[in-house]
Parts: sequence; structure tokens; C-alpha cells
Amino acid sequence: MKIINVILSGGVGSRLWPLSRKSKPKQYLPIFDGRTLFEKTVERNLHYCNSIIIVGNKENYQLSREKLEQLGITHYGEIIEACPRNTAAAIAFAAFSVSPEDLLLISPSDHLIENDHFYQDSILRGIDLAKNGFMVTFGLKPKNPETGFGYIESDGEEVLGFREKPDLKTAEFFFNSNNFLWNSGMFCFKAGIYLEELEKLHPEVYITSLLAFNSKSDGFLDLENSLKIPSISIDYAVMEKTKNIKVVKSEFQWSDMGSFESLYDYLSSIGHPIDENGNMVIGTDIHTEFVGLKNTILINSPDALLILQKSMAQEVKGVYNRIEITKPELI
Amino acid sequence: MKIINVILSGGVGSRLWPLSRKSKPKQYLPIFDGRTLFEKTVERNLHYCNSIIIVGNKENYQLSREKLEQLGITHYGEIIEACPRNTAAAIAFAAFSVSPEDLLLISPSDHLIENDHFYQDSILRGIDLAKNGFMVTFGLKPKNPETGFGYIESDGEEVLGFREKPDLKTAEFFFNSNNFLWNSGMFCFKAGIYLEELEKLHPEVYITSLLAFNSKSDGFLDLENSLKIPSISIDYAVMEKTKNIKVVKSEFQWSDMGSFESLYDYLSSIGHPIDENGNMVIGTDIHTEFVGLKNTILINSPDALLILQKSMAQEVKGVYNRIEITKPELI
Repeated sequence: MKIINVILSGGVGSRLWPLSRKSKPKQYLPIFDGRTLFEKTVERNLHYCNSIIIVGNKENYQLSREKLEQLGITHYGEIIEACPRNTAAAIAFAAFSVSPEDLLLISPSDHLIENDHFYQDSILRGIDLAKNGFMVTFGLKPKNPETGFGYIESDGEEVLGFREKPDLKTAEFFFNSNNFLWNSGMFCFKAGIYLEELEKLHPEVYITSLLAFNSKSDGFLDLENSLKIPSISIDYAVMEKTKNIKVVKSEFQWSDMGSFESLYDYLSSIGHPIDENGNMVIGTDIHTEFVGLKNTILINSPDALLILQKSMAQEVKGVYNRIEITKPELI
Repeated sequence: MKIINVILSGGVGSRLWPLSRKSKPKQYLPIFDGRTLFEKTVERNLHYCNSIIIVGNKENYQLSREKLEQLGITHYGEIIEACPRNTAAAIAFAAFSVSPEDLLLISPSDHLIENDHFYQDSILRGIDLAKNGFMVTFGLKPKNPETGFGYIESDGEEVLGFREKPDLKTAEFFFNSNNFLWNSGMFCFKAGIYLEELEKLHPEVYITSLLAFNSKSDGFLDLENSLKIPSISIDYAVMEKTKNIKVVKSEFQWSDMGSFESLYDYLSSIGHPIDENGNMVIGTDIHTEFVGLKNTILINSPDALLILQKSMAQEVKGVYNRIEITKPELI
């Protein structure tokens, strides 16, 4: 039995445009003390895993290859998606490629996590539960009444239910009640058990993923078969329905870096300059002055500038979607 | 008797930083349909004047020389100040350099004025009054209850008094009352009459200006003598006190381009792009998006960026003053 870190690196990070682009998603931006979230993920999980499988996409698989080579990692699995099909299928591809007894530790590649003793405790507990046949999810103790995340309702390690992104009032109730946890997007289970559950709970994803997987060539999935796979998350397809689930309540340092607001918080915490009104510049050393503005972020890239009121950081996805149509060369 | 346009071009335009710099004040920025306010001033007044005197400063006299050469103007007077001493002295220097009977049409070099029939009527009337020995000021019919300008209280061509920049309530009263005019900063009088009035009303400016003027060499004023001149405007030193004043009530198109708010209005009027929330980019063609911001201006220069809430445009002077001390290389 091996313990395999499945790194999901197909995301494009549209909420960090224009820093992140299709050709350079946020997990490949060297903005975390000069390192990328992808490499931090790889290095962190190597402490607990024997090997790695990258599930990437055809737009950016070279970036993960380059980074792994730089890290001196030459043996790893690689599955290159023809088109984004969400996490239920991405994880199925990894599961199809290994032995059913192998343990998969599923991790996004674009979250910022510190490998502290809380993380170690959580991962080791998750592996232990997965060895005993459970489908394990990792839930984080909320740091604030966040409305941008899904929650897991828990009772110890039992999962009572999944909750969609709440409104503020509900988020405050969750925050104060102590048994609602942020859904981290990390999972741990045996490959075979995941596939059994997927086949049972969402047979269409199972069978179409298997067909796409079997038609792959040199690690590259076939587009025609891939397009037949329903695009659905592992949460919806499996985790919310399975009876075989456990949650590990975790307190490690975690951020999904899902918006410029998260990035701003991280950069502030490591001493990136902010003026007296909370304004920040990202991406240039050119002297910048803000007048009459508060909590504004200038994001500077060679071919696009974004000036963002921090509290509106979620709107950047809308800009990305618009520009994808009107000026695709900037995406 | 000659009619001489005295062009005051010693200003640095700190409110348009970082577009304008000490080495390139706003009157030399080619941002008005590719032309500068300095050249537009020269060309406009050549219709009414026989010659030109430039009162510039040692930081930027080359810029006026270059521009006049480009315009094919080779004969003109030039006085180069060693340090800024305000308008009472600057105009005295010009007056000392000509015959007492010569008429001076005094104009700032950094205002945007259209040479329309209103302008022609006003200038011709001003010249007429000046020929008859009056000290003429030009007052503009207010377009809005502006708090950023001084006002002239008038009764026909009689001046009843000068008013400092008013608060909004007073500005609204001025705006509605029809006999308060914006002080344009333009004047017309005989050189000799100006000097007589200056000698009588502010003898210290008169005598120190004369000493500095007499010690000049090759058009360059002497620093030591110049520093002895009180720095005071023609309004305070002469116009507010003389009994010999007339005002020409004018309606020509005029903007002092005194802030990015004025520049924004001008650029809007000639079709410079603005997004649906009133945001504007000046100084770059790089694709720029504003999210969560309204009426914000990005001013882009190679070594400094300014992000400005338009309504706070007057605060840019404070930024300039601060940077002059902390980062003088950006000034």
C-alpha cells in the first residue's frame, strides 16, 4: 500500500487576474516568499506520502513538469485533462491509475497551508481513518463568519451534513456554534473505496470518467470522451451522499487564496507595504500614491492593470469572464 | 507703442504630479490634442500683440526656447528668474524691460482658453481700456459655484472688491448674484502705469525687483538679489488697492487646469475614454480595469503612479510637497 498525494492543479484562478492567467494560474505564481503554491503543496505533502500524481490540464502541464524537475522529483504520475471536468472526475482519474488499496491524499495545488504540527496531526489522523476504510474530509475551525466558503456540520469526527455558502447571519451562527467547519477541499481515502462509492452514488461520472481514462494516450485524456463527463464536484457527487464519511477537525494555517482579499491579507502578514489608508500595490516597485482612496489594491502586470476596492474582490471573476470574450489575449 | 504679451511660465503645476514635474511643468505637457498650453497661449495672443516676453525660471527656460523655435518665433524678450517670487515681481521685470508707454497683456501660460469671439471681444476691450490708462483685469462669468477660485465683485466695468476663495454657501451666492466673476489671472495695462502703481502701493516689491532686474546678466536674474523680493501676487500687491482698475466681464472658454479634476473634464469633453463608473486612465494604453471604484483616475508615468479619487484632486499638491522632501528625484 502506497500513500499518494493527488495534486489537483487544473484551476485557472480567475479571481487573481491579471496576476494569474490561463497560461500561468495562481498556483504557479512565485509570490509566496518567491515560491509557488504548487511547490509548497508538493513539498509539504512529501512528508506524509510516498508518491505524487498530478492532475493538470493541457494549458499548463509544462509548468508543473518544470517545477517538479527543479525540485528534483522525477518519478510521479501525471494525468493531463483535455478540458476542466471538476473534482469528482479528476480524482477518479487518479484512482483509476493506482491500486485499489493505495491511499489517496487529495489536495488542491493553490491553497496556502503551513506544515505546522496541527497539519501533521490532521494528516496523520486522516491517513489512519482512511486506512480503516473511511472517506475522510478535512474541516477547518472557522477563523471568522466567512460567507465565501461551504461548511461541514460535524459532531466529533461524524459528519452531520454539508452546507452551501451561507448568508452573513447564518455564517455568524456557524461561527459561534463550534461544530461547523470550513470545507477545506482536501480528502483522504483508499482509491478503491472512492471508486466504489462513485460508481454507486454517481454512476454516470464513474463510467464516463473510466471511458475517458481508458482512451488516454501518454497521460493526455481524449477531448471527445472527456466532454461526456458531467462536471461535478466530489462534494456533490460523493461526499454529501456517502455513509462512509469522517471529518478531521483541523486548526492548521489555511487560506484558499481565492481572491485578492486573501492575497492582501497574506501579503500584509509578511510585511508587504500598505499605506496609512490600507492601500496596497502588487506587481510593481514603481512609486505609487493613492489619494482619497482606502483599502484599494493596484495590481500591475505588463499588459493589464486592475484597480480594486478590496471588499469587491469577488467581482474580479466577472471581469475575467468579460475579458475572456472581449480581449482573450489578456487571459 | 507696442502691445506685448507677457507670458508667465514659472509655475511648476504641482497639482498635476506625476504628469507634471519641476523639469516639465504642466504648460509644457503635450496633452491638449498633442499641443501644450504654452504654445496655445503664444499662438492665441499673437493675434492681438506685436511681441512676446517670457518670464520663466531657470529650471525650464529651455522648454519655452525650444517651443518658440519650433513655432518659428525668434524675436522675443526673455527674463529668467533665479527663484519663484510670485506675480507682482514677475510682471515688474517685464515692465522694466520695455518702454513705459508699451501695453502689457499679462497671461499665465498654463490655462486652457479657446480663442473664440468672446475672447477676442474681451482682449480688444481690455487693450482699449489699458490704452486709456486703466489697470485692467479680466473676470469670467462663473460656470458653477466654484470654491477653488478667487472672485471679483463688479458693477459693469467697475471693480467693487476682490474676494478670497469662498466656502460653498458663499460661492452659491456669488454664482446666483451675477456680479461676481472668477479672477482669471490675466491683466492688461501700460508698463509705466503698472510700475507707478507698484512703487506707490508696494514700494518694497518695486525697489527689490528693480535691483534684481538691474543686476541681471544675459536675461538671468541674480539669486541673491531675487531672494530679497517679497513673494506676493499682483492681486494683493496692486490690483486690490489701486483706484485705477477696470474689469472686463468675459465669457470665453477658460479652465485653469489647476487639478486633475479640470484635466478630467477637458479630456472627457474631447472623448478620452471613461468607463461606466466614471473612471479614467491618463498616461498609458495598457488595458486597465476598475472594480468597486467610481470617478477614480489612474495617472501613469514611467517612474510614478497616482490613483486618485477625482473629488480629492486638490490633495495632490500635498502629495507633491511630501514627495519633494522624501523622494525629490520623483519631482
